[in-house]
Amino acid sequence: MVRKPAGAGRRAGESGTREAILASARRSFYELGYDRTSVRGIAQAAGVDPALVIHFYGSKQQLFVRVVELPFVPAEVLPRILEGQSSHVGARLARFFLGVLETEESRLRIIGLVRSAASEPEAALMVRELISRELFVPLIEGLGSADAPLRASLIGAQVVGLVMARYIVAVEPIASIESDVLERILAPAFQRLLVGTLDSANDATPS
Amino acid sequence: MVRKPAGAGRRAGESGTREAILASARRSFYELGYDRTSVRGIAQAAGVDPALVIHFYGSKQQLFVRVVELPFVPAEVLPRILEGQSSHVGARLARFFLGVLETEESRLRIIGLVRSAASEPEAALMVRELISRELFVPLIEGLGSADAPLRASLIGAQVVGLVMARYIVAVEPIASIESDVLERILAPAFQRLLVGTLDSANDATPS
Repeated sequence: MVRKPAGAGRRAGESGTREAILASARRSFYELGYDRTSVRGIAQAAGVDPALVIHFYGSKQQLFVRVVELPFVPAEVLPRILEGQSSHVGARLARFFLGVLETEESRLRIIGLVRSAASEPEAALMVRELISRELFVPLIEGLGSADAPLRASLIGAQVVGLVMARYIVAVEPIASIESDVLERILAPAFQRLLVGTLDSANDATPS
Repeated sequence: MVRKPAGAGRRAGESGTREAILASARRSFYELGYDRTSVRGIAQAAGVDPALVIHFYGSKQQLFVRVVELPFVPAEVLPRILEGQSSHVGARLARFFLGVLETEESRLRIIGLVRSAASEPEAALMVRELISRELFVPLIEGLGSADAPLRASLIGAQVVGLVMARYIVAVEPIASIESDVLERILAPAFQRLLVGTLDSANDATPS
Protein backbone atom coordinates (compact mmCIF):
# COMPACT_ATOMS: atom_id res chain seq x y z
CA MET A 1 0.00 0.00 0.00
CA VAL A 2 1.10 3.53 -0.66
CA ARG A 3 1.49 5.48 2.56
CA LYS A 4 0.38 9.08 2.56
CA PRO A 5 3.11 11.55 3.43
CA ALA A 6 3.19 12.86 7.00
CA GLY A 7 1.52 16.23 7.57
CA ALA A 8 -1.71 17.94 8.54
CA GLY A 9 -3.78 15.79 6.18
CA ARG A 10 -2.48 12.54 7.63
CA ARG A 11 -3.32 13.57 11.20
CA ALA A 12 -6.96 14.29 10.29
CA GLY A 13 -7.23 11.00 8.37
CA GLU A 14 -5.83 8.96 11.24
CA SER A 15 -8.18 10.61 13.68
CA GLY A 16 -11.12 9.87 11.38
CA THR A 17 -10.07 6.24 11.03
CA ARG A 18 -9.75 5.82 14.81
CA GLU A 19 -13.23 7.27 15.23
CA ALA A 20 -14.65 4.99 12.54
CA ILE A 21 -13.14 1.93 14.23
CA LEU A 22 -14.54 2.98 17.60
CA ALA A 23 -18.01 3.57 16.14
CA SER A 24 -17.90 0.19 14.40
CA ALA A 25 -16.79 -1.52 17.62
CA ARG A 26 -19.55 0.17 19.65
CA ARG A 27 -22.16 -1.00 17.14
CA SER A 28 -20.78 -4.52 17.01
CA PHE A 29 -20.56 -4.97 20.80
CA TYR A 30 -24.12 -3.69 21.03
CA GLU A 31 -25.59 -5.80 18.22
CA LEU A 32 -23.60 -9.00 18.62
CA GLY A 33 -22.32 -8.92 22.21
CA TYR A 34 -18.71 -9.43 23.25
CA ASP A 35 -18.36 -13.08 22.22
CA ARG A 36 -19.56 -12.78 18.64
CA THR A 37 -17.74 -9.50 18.02
CA SER A 38 -14.45 -9.98 16.14
CA VAL A 39 -11.63 -7.59 15.31
CA ARG A 40 -12.02 -8.72 11.71
CA GLY A 41 -15.73 -7.80 11.72
CA ILE A 42 -15.07 -4.43 13.31
CA ALA A 43 -12.37 -3.69 10.73
CA GLN A 44 -14.58 -4.74 7.85
CA ALA A 45 -17.48 -2.52 8.97
CA ALA A 46 -15.07 0.39 9.40
CA GLY A 47 -13.49 -0.25 5.99
CA VAL A 48 -9.97 -0.74 7.34
CA ASP A 49 -7.44 -3.54 7.68
CA PRO A 50 -7.72 -5.63 10.91
CA ALA A 51 -4.05 -4.88 11.59
CA LEU A 52 -4.96 -1.20 11.85
CA VAL A 53 -7.53 -2.00 14.56
CA ILE A 54 -4.84 -3.83 16.54
CA HIS A 55 -2.37 -1.02 15.86
CA PHE A 56 -4.70 1.61 17.28
CA TYR A 57 -6.43 -0.30 20.08
CA GLY A 58 -4.34 -3.37 20.91
CA SER A 59 -7.01 -6.07 21.24
CA LYS A 60 -10.73 -6.77 21.31
CA GLN A 61 -10.61 -6.56 25.11
CA GLN A 62 -8.89 -3.16 25.07
CA LEU A 63 -11.32 -1.92 22.43
CA PHE A 64 -14.22 -2.98 24.63
CA VAL A 65 -12.77 -1.12 27.60
CA ARG A 66 -12.36 1.93 25.36
CA VAL A 67 -15.97 1.70 24.15
CA VAL A 68 -17.42 1.57 27.67
CA GLU A 69 -14.96 4.31 28.60
CA LEU A 70 -14.11 2.78 31.93
CA PRO A 71 -11.85 5.03 33.97
CA PHE A 72 -9.48 2.12 34.64
CA VAL A 73 -7.98 -0.89 32.84
CA PRO A 74 -9.16 -4.12 34.51
CA ALA A 75 -5.99 -6.00 33.55
CA GLU A 76 -3.92 -3.44 35.47
CA VAL A 77 -6.25 -3.29 38.45
CA LEU A 78 -6.77 -7.02 39.08
CA PRO A 79 -3.22 -7.89 40.16
CA ARG A 80 -3.26 -5.07 42.72
CA ILE A 81 -6.51 -6.35 44.28
CA LEU A 82 -5.38 -9.98 44.21
CA GLU A 83 -1.98 -9.23 45.75
CA GLY A 84 -1.81 -9.74 49.52
CA GLN A 85 -3.71 -11.78 52.10
CA SER A 86 -6.99 -13.20 50.78
CA SER A 87 -8.54 -12.45 54.19
CA HIS A 88 -8.37 -8.76 53.25
CA VAL A 89 -9.33 -8.91 49.59
CA GLY A 90 -12.80 -7.50 50.37
CA ALA A 91 -11.18 -4.44 51.92
CA ARG A 92 -8.88 -4.01 48.91
CA LEU A 93 -11.82 -4.23 46.49
CA ALA A 94 -13.81 -1.72 48.56
CA ARG A 95 -10.84 0.65 48.67
CA PHE A 96 -10.29 0.35 44.92
CA PHE A 97 -13.93 1.11 44.08
CA LEU A 98 -14.25 3.98 46.47
CA GLY A 99 -11.00 5.39 45.11
CA VAL A 100 -12.50 5.32 41.60
CA LEU A 101 -15.73 6.89 42.84
CA GLU A 102 -14.05 9.62 44.88
CA THR A 103 -12.22 10.97 41.81
CA GLU A 104 -14.54 13.32 39.95
CA GLU A 105 -13.77 12.36 36.38
CA SER A 106 -13.94 8.62 36.94
CA ARG A 107 -17.00 9.00 39.18
CA LEU A 108 -18.85 10.78 36.37
CA ARG A 109 -17.99 8.03 33.91
CA ILE A 110 -19.24 5.31 36.26
CA ILE A 111 -22.41 7.25 37.08
CA GLY A 112 -23.02 7.74 33.35
CA LEU A 113 -22.57 4.05 32.71
CA VAL A 114 -24.94 2.97 35.50
CA ARG A 115 -27.52 5.59 34.60
CA SER A 116 -27.41 4.57 30.93
CA ALA A 117 -27.66 0.90 31.87
CA ALA A 118 -31.08 1.59 33.43
CA SER A 119 -32.57 2.54 30.07
CA GLU A 120 -30.20 1.69 27.20
CA PRO A 121 -29.63 -1.93 26.16
CA GLU A 122 -26.16 -1.02 24.86
CA ALA A 123 -25.02 0.31 28.21
CA ALA A 124 -26.68 -2.61 30.03
CA LEU A 125 -24.66 -4.95 27.84
CA MET A 126 -21.49 -3.08 28.75
CA VAL A 127 -22.22 -3.39 32.45
CA ARG A 128 -23.01 -7.09 32.05
CA GLU A 129 -19.78 -7.78 30.21
CA LEU A 130 -17.81 -5.77 32.72
CA ILE A 131 -19.29 -7.72 35.61
CA SER A 132 -19.17 -11.15 34.08
CA ARG A 133 -16.01 -10.99 32.07
CA GLU A 134 -13.66 -8.09 32.57
CA LEU A 135 -13.48 -7.58 36.27
CA PHE A 136 -15.30 -9.72 38.80
CA VAL A 137 -15.14 -13.21 37.30
CA PRO A 138 -11.35 -12.99 36.73
CA LEU A 139 -10.96 -11.60 40.25
CA ILE A 140 -12.94 -14.44 41.83
CA GLU A 141 -11.26 -17.07 39.70
CA GLY A 142 -7.94 -15.59 40.76
CA LEU A 143 -8.99 -16.18 44.36
CA GLY A 144 -9.91 -19.79 43.65
CA SER A 145 -13.52 -19.46 44.84
CA ALA A 146 -16.28 -21.66 43.42
CA ASP A 147 -19.35 -20.20 41.71
CA ALA A 148 -17.38 -17.32 40.15
CA PRO A 149 -20.22 -16.13 37.83
CA LEU A 150 -22.76 -16.08 40.67
CA ARG A 151 -20.39 -14.29 43.05
CA ALA A 152 -19.51 -11.84 40.27
CA SER A 153 -23.15 -11.00 39.57
CA LEU A 154 -23.83 -10.49 43.30
CA ILE A 155 -20.84 -8.13 43.62
CA GLY A 156 -22.00 -6.36 40.47
CA ALA A 157 -25.41 -5.85 42.10
CA GLN A 158 -23.71 -4.38 45.19
CA VAL A 159 -21.56 -1.98 43.20
CA VAL A 160 -24.40 -0.85 40.93
CA GLY A 161 -26.64 -0.41 43.99
CA LEU A 162 -23.95 1.62 45.73
CA VAL A 163 -23.55 3.93 42.74
CA MET A 164 -27.34 4.34 42.49
CA ALA A 165 -27.85 4.98 46.21
CA ARG A 166 -24.83 7.24 46.82
CA TYR A 167 -24.73 9.31 43.64
CA ILE A 168 -27.94 8.95 41.60
CA VAL A 169 -30.82 8.48 44.05
CA ALA A 170 -28.62 10.22 46.64
CA VAL A 171 -30.27 8.78 49.73
CA GLU A 172 -28.82 9.98 53.03
CA PRO A 173 -26.61 9.28 54.83
CA ILE A 174 -24.96 6.94 52.30
CA ALA A 175 -24.80 9.87 49.86
CA SER A 176 -22.56 11.94 52.11
CA ILE A 177 -20.88 9.41 54.43
CA GLU A 178 -17.08 9.60 54.42
CA SER A 179 -15.32 7.26 52.08
CA ASP A 180 -13.22 5.52 54.74
CA VAL A 181 -16.29 4.70 56.85
CA LEU A 182 -18.09 3.33 53.80
CA GLU A 183 -15.00 1.30 52.95
CA ARG A 184 -15.09 -0.43 56.34
CA ILE A 185 -18.82 -1.14 55.92
CA LEU A 186 -18.45 -2.55 52.40
CA ALA A 187 -15.31 -4.60 53.10
CA PRO A 188 -16.99 -7.53 54.98
CA ALA A 189 -19.84 -7.69 52.43
CA PHE A 190 -17.35 -7.90 49.55
CA GLN A 191 -15.24 -10.37 51.54
CA ARG A 192 -18.19 -12.74 51.94
CA LEU A 193 -19.16 -12.49 48.28
CA LEU A 194 -15.57 -13.00 47.11
CA VAL A 195 -14.46 -15.92 49.29
CA GLY A 196 -17.09 -16.63 51.99
CA THR A 197 -20.17 -18.84 52.30
CA LEU A 198 -22.87 -17.65 49.91
CA ASP A 199 -25.89 -19.79 50.69
CA SER A 200 -27.01 -19.52 54.32
CA ALA A 201 -28.47 -23.05 54.10
CA ASN A 202 -24.86 -24.27 53.80
CA ASP A 203 -23.70 -22.25 56.78
CA ALA A 204 -23.43 -24.20 60.05
CA THR A 205 -23.99 -21.06 62.13
CA PRO A 206 -26.60 -18.85 60.44
CA SER A 207 -26.90 -15.53 62.19
CA MET B 1 -71.22 24.13 50.62
CA VAL B 2 -73.92 22.95 48.25
CA ARG B 3 -73.45 19.28 47.38
CA LYS B 4 -74.21 18.23 43.85
CA PRO B 5 -76.97 15.62 43.54
CA ALA B 6 -75.89 12.00 43.03
CA GLY B 7 -75.92 10.73 39.46
CA ALA B 8 -73.82 10.25 36.36
CA GLY B 9 -72.49 13.81 36.54
CA ARG B 10 -71.31 13.34 40.09
CA ARG B 11 -69.33 10.20 39.28
CA ALA B 12 -67.40 11.95 36.51
CA GLY B 13 -66.78 14.95 38.77
CA GLU B 14 -65.52 12.79 41.62
CA SER B 15 -63.14 10.95 39.32
CA GLY B 16 -61.81 14.27 38.03
CA THR B 17 -61.35 15.55 41.56
CA ARG B 18 -59.45 12.44 42.63
CA GLU B 19 -57.18 12.81 39.61
CA ALA B 20 -56.62 16.51 40.37
CA ILE B 21 -55.66 15.71 43.96
CA LEU B 22 -53.26 13.01 42.82
CA ALA B 23 -51.63 15.31 40.25
CA SER B 24 -51.30 18.05 42.86
CA ALA B 25 -49.77 15.60 45.35
CA ARG B 26 -47.29 14.29 42.77
CA ARG B 27 -46.19 17.84 41.96
CA SER B 28 -45.91 18.83 45.59
CA PHE B 29 -43.91 15.75 46.66
CA TYR B 30 -41.59 16.39 43.71
CA GLU B 31 -41.15 20.14 44.22
CA LEU B 32 -41.19 20.33 48.01
CA GLY B 33 -40.29 16.83 49.19
CA TYR B 34 -42.25 14.80 51.70
CA ASP B 35 -41.62 16.98 54.77
CA ARG B 36 -42.73 20.29 53.32
CA THR B 37 -45.71 18.82 51.51
CA SER B 38 -48.98 19.32 53.39
CA VAL B 39 -52.49 18.00 52.81
CA ARG B 40 -53.64 21.61 53.00
CA GLY B 41 -51.22 22.66 50.24
CA ILE B 42 -52.20 19.72 48.04
CA ALA B 43 -55.88 20.57 48.52
CA GLN B 44 -55.32 24.24 47.75
CA ALA B 45 -53.43 23.51 44.52
CA ALA B 46 -56.17 21.08 43.46
CA GLY B 47 -58.89 23.60 44.34
CA VAL B 48 -60.63 21.33 46.85
CA ASP B 49 -61.25 21.19 50.59
CA PRO B 50 -58.51 19.43 52.64
CA ALA B 51 -61.22 17.18 54.11
CA LEU B 52 -61.84 15.83 50.62
CA VAL B 53 -58.16 14.86 50.28
CA ILE B 54 -58.42 12.91 53.54
CA HIS B 55 -61.75 11.45 52.46
CA PHE B 56 -60.29 10.09 49.22
CA TYR B 57 -56.76 9.15 50.28
CA GLY B 58 -56.67 8.86 54.06
CA SER B 59 -53.42 10.68 54.91
CA LYS B 60 -50.32 12.31 53.51
CA GLN B 61 -48.47 9.00 53.96
CA GLN B 62 -51.12 7.03 52.07
CA LEU B 63 -51.17 9.66 49.34
CA PHE B 64 -47.42 9.34 48.98
CA VAL B 65 -47.67 5.56 48.67
CA ARG B 66 -50.36 6.09 46.04
CA VAL B 67 -48.21 8.54 44.09
CA VAL B 68 -45.21 6.20 43.96
CA GLU B 69 -47.62 3.36 43.18
CA LEU B 70 -45.86 0.87 45.38
CA PRO B 71 -47.33 -2.59 45.02
CA PHE B 72 -47.63 -2.90 48.81
CA VAL B 73 -48.54 -0.78 51.82
CA PRO B 74 -45.51 -0.42 54.11
CA ALA B 75 -47.66 -0.09 57.24
CA GLU B 76 -49.18 -3.51 56.53
CA VAL B 77 -45.89 -5.15 55.62
CA LEU B 78 -43.72 -3.97 58.51
CA PRO B 79 -45.46 -5.88 61.31
CA ARG B 80 -45.15 -9.12 59.34
CA ILE B 81 -41.40 -8.64 58.90
CA LEU B 82 -40.87 -7.57 62.50
CA GLU B 83 -42.87 -10.45 63.95
CA GLY B 84 -40.78 -13.44 65.04
CA GLN B 85 -37.17 -14.01 66.09
CA SER B 86 -34.89 -11.08 65.32
CA SER B 87 -32.20 -13.62 64.39
CA HIS B 88 -34.24 -14.40 61.25
CA VAL B 89 -35.44 -10.92 60.31
CA GLY B 90 -32.97 -10.81 57.41
CA ALA B 91 -34.52 -13.95 55.96
CA ARG B 92 -38.03 -12.53 56.39
CA LEU B 93 -37.04 -9.28 54.61
CA ALA B 94 -35.40 -11.25 51.78
CA ARG B 95 -38.50 -13.45 51.44
CA PHE B 96 -40.80 -10.42 51.40
CA PHE B 97 -38.82 -8.63 48.67
CA LEU B 98 -38.40 -11.65 46.48
CA GLY B 99 -42.13 -12.33 46.86
CA VAL B 100 -42.87 -8.82 45.58
CA LEU B 101 -40.39 -9.23 42.74
CA GLU B 102 -41.61 -12.67 41.69
CA THR B 103 -45.14 -11.38 41.09
CA GLU B 104 -45.33 -9.89 37.61
CA GLU B 105 -47.47 -6.83 38.26
CA SER B 106 -45.57 -5.72 41.37
CA ARG B 107 -42.22 -6.54 39.76
CA LEU B 108 -43.04 -4.23 36.84
CA ARG B 109 -43.93 -1.40 39.22
CA ILE B 110 -40.68 -1.78 41.16
CA ILE B 111 -38.62 -2.02 37.97
CA GLY B 112 -40.34 1.12 36.67
CA LEU B 113 -39.60 2.97 39.88
CA VAL B 114 -35.91 2.00 39.92
CA ARG B 115 -35.48 2.68 36.22
CA SER B 116 -37.13 6.10 36.56
CA ALA B 117 -35.02 6.89 39.62
CA ALA B 118 -31.90 6.63 37.45
CA SER B 119 -32.94 9.60 35.35
CA GLU B 120 -35.92 11.45 36.87
CA PRO B 121 -35.48 13.53 40.02
CA GLU B 122 -39.13 12.93 40.94
CA ALA B 123 -38.72 9.17 40.97
CA ALA B 124 -35.37 9.46 42.77
CA LEU B 125 -37.14 11.44 45.48
CA MET B 126 -39.76 8.74 45.75
CA VAL B 127 -37.13 6.06 46.19
CA ARG B 128 -35.30 8.18 48.76
CA GLU B 129 -38.43 8.75 50.79
CA LEU B 130 -39.34 5.10 50.57
CA ILE B 131 -35.93 4.04 51.83
CA SER B 132 -35.50 6.65 54.49
CA ARG B 133 -39.01 7.03 55.75
CA GLU B 134 -41.64 4.54 54.71
CA LEU B 135 -39.99 1.19 54.95
CA PHE B 136 -36.45 0.65 56.13
CA VAL B 137 -36.01 3.22 58.87
CA PRO B 138 -39.24 2.17 60.65
CA LEU B 139 -38.19 -1.47 60.26
CA ILE B 140 -34.75 -0.89 61.77
CA GLU B 141 -36.14 1.31 64.54
CA GLY B 142 -38.63 -1.46 65.26
CA LEU B 143 -35.69 -3.82 65.72
CA GLY B 144 -33.97 -1.40 68.12
CA SER B 145 -30.76 -1.13 66.08
CA ALA B 146 -28.59 2.00 66.21
CA ASP B 147 -27.80 4.02 63.06
CA ALA B 148 -31.22 3.38 61.50
CA PRO B 149 -30.81 5.93 58.64
CA LEU B 150 -27.39 4.54 57.66
CA ARG B 151 -28.58 0.93 57.82
CA ALA B 152 -31.69 1.91 55.84
CA SER B 153 -29.66 3.55 53.07
CA LEU B 154 -27.35 0.52 52.86
CA ILE B 155 -30.32 -1.86 52.56
CA GLY B 156 -31.83 0.49 49.99
CA ALA B 157 -28.60 0.25 47.97
CA GLN B 158 -28.79 -3.56 48.15
CA VAL B 159 -32.40 -3.72 47.01
CA VAL B 160 -31.92 -1.19 44.19
CA GLY B 161 -28.77 -3.04 43.10
CA LEU B 162 -30.63 -6.34 43.12
CA VAL B 163 -33.44 -4.94 40.96
CA MET B 164 -30.90 -3.42 38.55
CA ALA B 165 -28.76 -6.58 38.31
CA ARG B 166 -31.58 -9.16 38.16
CA TYR B 167 -34.15 -7.40 36.00
CA ILE B 168 -32.70 -4.32 34.27
CA VAL B 169 -29.05 -5.04 33.48
CA ALA B 170 -29.97 -8.76 33.61
CA VAL B 171 -26.52 -10.10 34.38
CA GLU B 172 -26.28 -13.88 34.68
CA PRO B 173 -26.70 -15.95 36.72
CA ILE B 174 -28.40 -13.54 39.16
CA ALA B 175 -30.97 -12.75 36.45
CA SER B 176 -32.24 -16.32 36.29
CA ILE B 177 -31.28 -17.87 39.64
CA GLU B 178 -34.19 -19.42 41.52
CA SER B 179 -35.87 -17.20 44.04
CA ASP B 180 -35.34 -19.51 47.04
CA VAL B 181 -31.59 -19.75 46.40
CA LEU B 182 -31.34 -15.99 46.09
CA GLU B 183 -33.34 -15.64 49.31
CA ARG B 184 -30.78 -17.72 51.22
CA ILE B 185 -27.94 -15.65 49.73
CA LEU B 186 -29.56 -12.31 50.57
CA ALA B 187 -30.73 -13.27 54.05
CA PRO B 188 -27.34 -13.00 55.86
CA ALA B 189 -26.51 -9.72 54.07
CA PHE B 190 -29.84 -8.21 55.16
CA GLN B 191 -29.40 -9.70 58.64
CA ARG B 192 -26.05 -7.93 59.07
CA LEU B 193 -27.38 -4.61 57.78
CA LEU B 194 -30.51 -4.82 59.97
CA VAL B 195 -29.03 -5.89 63.32
CA GLY B 196 -25.34 -6.81 62.91
CA THR B 197 -22.01 -4.98 63.13
CA LEU B 198 -21.73 -2.44 60.33
CA ASP B 199 -18.23 -1.05 60.60
CA SER B 200 -15.54 -3.72 60.32
CA ALA B 201 -13.20 -1.55 62.42
CA ASN B 202 -15.58 -2.23 65.32
CA ASP B 203 -15.60 -5.96 64.70
CA ALA B 204 -13.28 -8.01 66.90
CA THR B 205 -12.94 -10.77 64.31
CA PRO B 206 -12.85 -9.27 60.83
CA SER B 207 -12.92 -12.02 58.23
